[in-house]
Amino acid sequence: MGTFRYEALEVLLRQQIQTGRYKIGEKLPSVRTLCKQHELSKATVIHALHKLEADQLVYAVPKSGYFVAESGADFNTPQKVSTPSIPAQVNVPDIFRDIMSRSAAFDILPSDGSTPAAQHLINLNRMIGKASRSHPEQKAHYYDEPKGHVGLRSAIVDLYRQRETSLSVDDLCITSGCQHALFLALMATCQKGDTVAIESPAFYGALQQLEQLGLHVIEISSDTNKGLDLQELAEKIQDWPIKACIVTPNFHTPTGSKMPLANMKALVKLANQHDFYIIEDDIYGELRFRSELCPPIKSVCDEGRVILCGSFSKCLSRELRIGWIAGGLLHHKIVQLKLITQLASPQAVQEGLAEFISQGHFKRYVNQHRQQLKEQRDQLLAELKRNWGTQIKFTKPNGGLSCWVELPDHIDTKQSYKVLLEKGIVLTPGVLFSAHGLYKNHMRLSFSQPLTERRRAALHLLFQTLLTNQ
Amino acid sequence: MGTFRYEALEVLLRQQIQTGRYKIGEKLPSVRTLCKQHELSKATVIHALHKLEADQLVYAVPKSGYFVAESGADFNTPQKVSTPSIPAQVNVPDIFRDIMSRSAAFDILPSDGSTPAAQHLINLNRMIGKASRSHPEQKAHYYDEPKGHVGLRSAIVDLYRQRETSLSVDDLCITSGCQHALFLALMATCQKGDTVAIESPAFYGALQQLEQLGLHVIEISSDTNKGLDLQELAEKIQDWPIKACIVTPNFHTPTGSKMPLANMKALVKLANQHDFYIIEDDIYGELRFRSELCPPIKSVCDEGRVILCGSFSKCLSRELRIGWIAGGLLHHKIVQLKLITQLASPQAVQEGLAEFISQGHFKRYVNQHRQQLKEQRDQLLAELKRNWGTQIKFTKPNGGLSCWVELPDHIDTKQSYKVLLEKGIVLTPGVLFSAHGLYKNHMRLSFSQPLTERRRAALHLLFQTLLTNQ
Repeated sequence: MGTFRYEALEVLLRQQIQTGRYKIGEKLPSVRTLCKQHELSKATVIHALHKLEADQLVYAVPKSGYFVAESGADFNTPQKVSTPSIPAQVNVPDIFRDIMSRSAAFDILPSDGSTPAAQHLINLNRMIGKASRSHPEQKAHYYDEPKGHVGLRSAIVDLYRQRETSLSVDDLCITSGCQHALFLALMATCQKGDTVAIESPAFYGALQQLEQLGLHVIEISSDTNKGLDLQELAEKIQDWPIKACIVTPNFHTPTGSKMPLANMKALVKLANQHDFYIIEDDIYGELRFRSELCPPIKSVCDEGRVILCGSFSKCLSRELRIGWIAGGLLHHKIVQLKLITQLASPQAVQEGLAEFISQGHFKRYVNQHRQQLKEQRDQLLAELKRNWGTQIKFTKPNGGLSCWVELPDHIDTKQSYKVLLEKGIVLTPGVLFSAHGLYKNHMRLSFSQPLTERRRAALHLLFQTLLTNQ
Repeated sequence: MGTFRYEALEVLLRQQIQTGRYKIGEKLPSVRTLCKQHELSKATVIHALHKLEADQLVYAVPKSGYFVAESGADFNTPQKVSTPSIPAQVNVPDIFRDIMSRSAAFDILPSDGSTPAAQHLINLNRMIGKASRSHPEQKAHYYDEPKGHVGLRSAIVDLYRQRETSLSVDDLCITSGCQHALFLALMATCQKGDTVAIESPAFYGALQQLEQLGLHVIEISSDTNKGLDLQELAEKIQDWPIKACIVTPNFHTPTGSKMPLANMKALVKLANQHDFYIIEDDIYGELRFRSELCPPIKSVCDEGRVILCGSFSKCLSRELRIGWIAGGLLHHKIVQLKLITQLASPQAVQEGLAEFISQGHFKRYVNQHRQQLKEQRDQLLAELKRNWGTQIKFTKPNGGLSCWVELPDHIDTKQSYKVLLEKGIVLTPGVLFSAHGLYKNHMRLSFSQPLTERRRAALHLLFQTLLTNQ
């Protein structure tokens, strides 16, 4: 059998990367250069590069080119867990409510004491305070319009434009955080008893929504690198038609996986073919550690099938309670649902936040925050590798707030939840992330907080408890 | 047939009030004195007083006694409109979305310019600002617990204690305004296709929720004085079993009616007999103009059948977006629904508001606000009576923000909506308040704003348009 011309180039570049001809972070020759060198068409070269990108060997930086990605191969990554072939109703464990009530889902040691206020929060508070002193009588007497403050929507449009995504202010509606946005998306797309596809492992907040709304869930394996397994999705929806698929393409929690652009396009194609909506959770979209732009799925869908949900909770402050939704085909209905669930959003917070973004404070902060998170990721992973590298497997995300840890098969992370809690340590067990009770020997670890000495000690106590007590 | 002993006393007191023996606002003799004078038992005297209270001839002031109520008889009040005997699905007119997007539901002239900030808003903003500067890192990194800030819940418990209602902090959950609370209550009590009883006319925000949730509505006549017609409710639920009844006992919008205590008790009895929940909208509960305490229905129900919903939007500021829900039997479920719809409430707003209430600012402000609203009501009603008293009928509420106006039969208030809007005047037409398209010749008028010269002129233009153009 003959080889396609792009395959030869792909094989060559793959070898060159794997043998170190191109180092991590190094730029590959431009498309133009590769065309000339190999006497290939532009389309063929791009096809080869897309294949490498889909395998996470390279990543694209717009207007710059393709760069060699870290291989992440100096430790073991979690294995694929096979998912049941039939849908289930969700039954969220009580432990979830306990974790939520401790407001601690992203910190193993929530009692680490308060740190002094960072300058960006002081600035943000100042701008919100100023907005609240502007026309306070007006604000006290009149509700905001249902879609939310137009200045803030315009600022969000700008943030997406920088990620190669074209939106208008009318495409957006402000919500009370991403959870509210996801809720509106599910209300707009599903009726009780309908089936929804989710990534497995999945975000537990969405699982709880599915439980409360009486929806059925079909779990689709999510690769710890590339995210949602599209082939598995295509197979399962033959038997179990779905109304919606919830997906976090950019830095999925808990694994930190990132869906390649080609997979995004394939997912949109599936949605069009099988008449379902893509509910895109973009809450980690701004938290990328590399120079790639991480456009959302929304950017590759012209048919309005993607309902884009996001929030400032993870990239700026959980206190704002400000998120957004761009509902595509269902946007009008979604704005009505916003109105009946919340009537209106607070105005001063939106005004102050719009000012914070338009003055460039957000961009400055989030740049610095990404760097800090990346360093915290490296600290945490180094600690994991050094101390427990032979016993555990974990992911190395290129964005987001957390990695996914697989422990030896006989360990049940949920069993240690209570005993650790008595020591002030909050463990986020793997079973939280499945509708079918998968991932008993997994847990999510977050690098959203610095690995202080106290957190380091907590981490040791955590692994000691998990690895020796069971 | 013999007369009950209480009836003789009731008849006597009724005559004495109607003939002016006791003047408006005058205190009746104490229960003890009446017992002695008429040689009756305490129970008999109280029974007679309750009958007078149910007829709105007197009102009770706890620890003080019974006072003669205004008769409200110097102008015509709207007539009862008979309601259809079968449920309907709601179809909210587009005009509603238009009014909402103008954030103008309670002001005929939203462009009246901004007034300087009142001291209470400056204080409130200061306290919220202070709270936002306290532990900002903590707030930015950790969500509030699902039920909301315990200090604010405790302050709300105190407010209800002053209205003879016993709640604990665990009975309450903070929401994003009363609309959010009502939504959670409907989600907790109903499934798509269920039937809900509402007062007719009804709050349009609730009607829109019922529409979006696919619920059926049975309209129950609401007396412009005493509110929900319990006999009609009892009859209709024989044929159309309901899951919930939404009721605003204290200063119902649009009529301003106030449900007597005896009717509250009868409604609770019906709910227990027929296994439905009472969704109590208490958003106007603090806006009473007389010295009565206006306890909510919750205060007379020990069985947990009442889901109490409220908010600071109408009695303090719409900008706060802070409400509450006490879900009784369904409270645990309701807290879960809060979690999936909003995750958490913003913390600084809750902390600042708790401080504002506990320092006595809220009580001072609301006392002054009640007085102001009462004066604005009198101004508006005097204007109505003087200019259009022979052509229109209207209510005289003892609390709340609005009165209900009935125009001659041939007038269709909705028809004038657009032409008035072009002149900057926002009319709230009667059809908004019915699921069956009733109240074509009605409208709501609010006295939430002072009757400035510009608003007076707008009012004249409004009536001129309505009464002469059709």
